[in-house]
Amino acid sequence: MAIRHIALFSWNSEATPERIAEIEGALSRLPGLIPALRGYTFGPDLGISEGNSDFAVVADVDDADGFVAYRDHPDHQAALGLIKPLLAGRSAVQFVLPEAD
Amino acid sequence: MAIRHIALFSWNSEATPERIAEIEGALSRLPGLIPALRGYTFGPDLGISEGNSDFAVVADVDDADGFVAYRDHPDHQAALGLIKPLLAGRSAVQFVLPEAD
Repeated sequence: MAIRHIALFSWNSEATPERIAEIEGALSRLPGLIPALRGYTFGPDLGISEGNSDFAVVADVDDADGFVAYRDHPDHQAALGLIKPLLAGRSAVQFVLPEAD
Repeated sequence: MAIRHIALFSWNSEATPERIAEIEGALSRLPGLIPALRGYTFGPDLGISEGNSDFAVVADVDDADGFVAYRDHPDHQAALGLIKPLLAGRSAVQFVLPEAD
C-alpha cells in the first residue's frame, strides 16, 4: 500500500530567500539519506493562482512504516528544524497511492 | 517545465461518505476526459497523523497552459461543483517538477 505524504507550507516574514534556499538544500539531500523514500518532490509555489500556500513537499513511501521512518529520520527532523521557525501555516495529508499500472 | 498542482481539502459537516464517494467517482473520470493530465492521484487522508486535512488531489501537467486547461475544463469544474459545498478549508500549491531522470 504505497502512501503519498503531502505538506503545504505558508511562510512568515522571517522566510528570507536565503533561508528558503537552505531548506531546499536540506530537502534535496533527503532522498540520498532516507532509504524509505520512493519519490520526493518539493518546491516553491509558482504564483499562478490566487490564495495559494508558499511551498510544497511530496514524499512517496511504500507503507505506513515507511512514512514513520521518513517522518522520524534525524535528517528529516533537522530539515523540520529549519522549516518550523518560518511557518505561518501548514496543511498535510497522507493518502494511499493506487498500485502502479 | 512540468508542473505539479496540489489541493488539500478539509470537509465540513455536509461531507457524508456518499458525497465523498461521488466526488472520488468524478475525479477518477478526469484523466480520461482531460488530455492535459500527465499524472492524477487523489484520496482521503489515512488518519495516521494529528491535525491533517481530509483529502488530497495531485495533478501533474506539462506546463502552465496544461494547468489552465485542467483548471478550466468543464469536467473539472463539474467536480469542483461537487467539492465546494463540502469545503471547510482548502490549501493549494503549484510547483515545478524536476525533469525526469
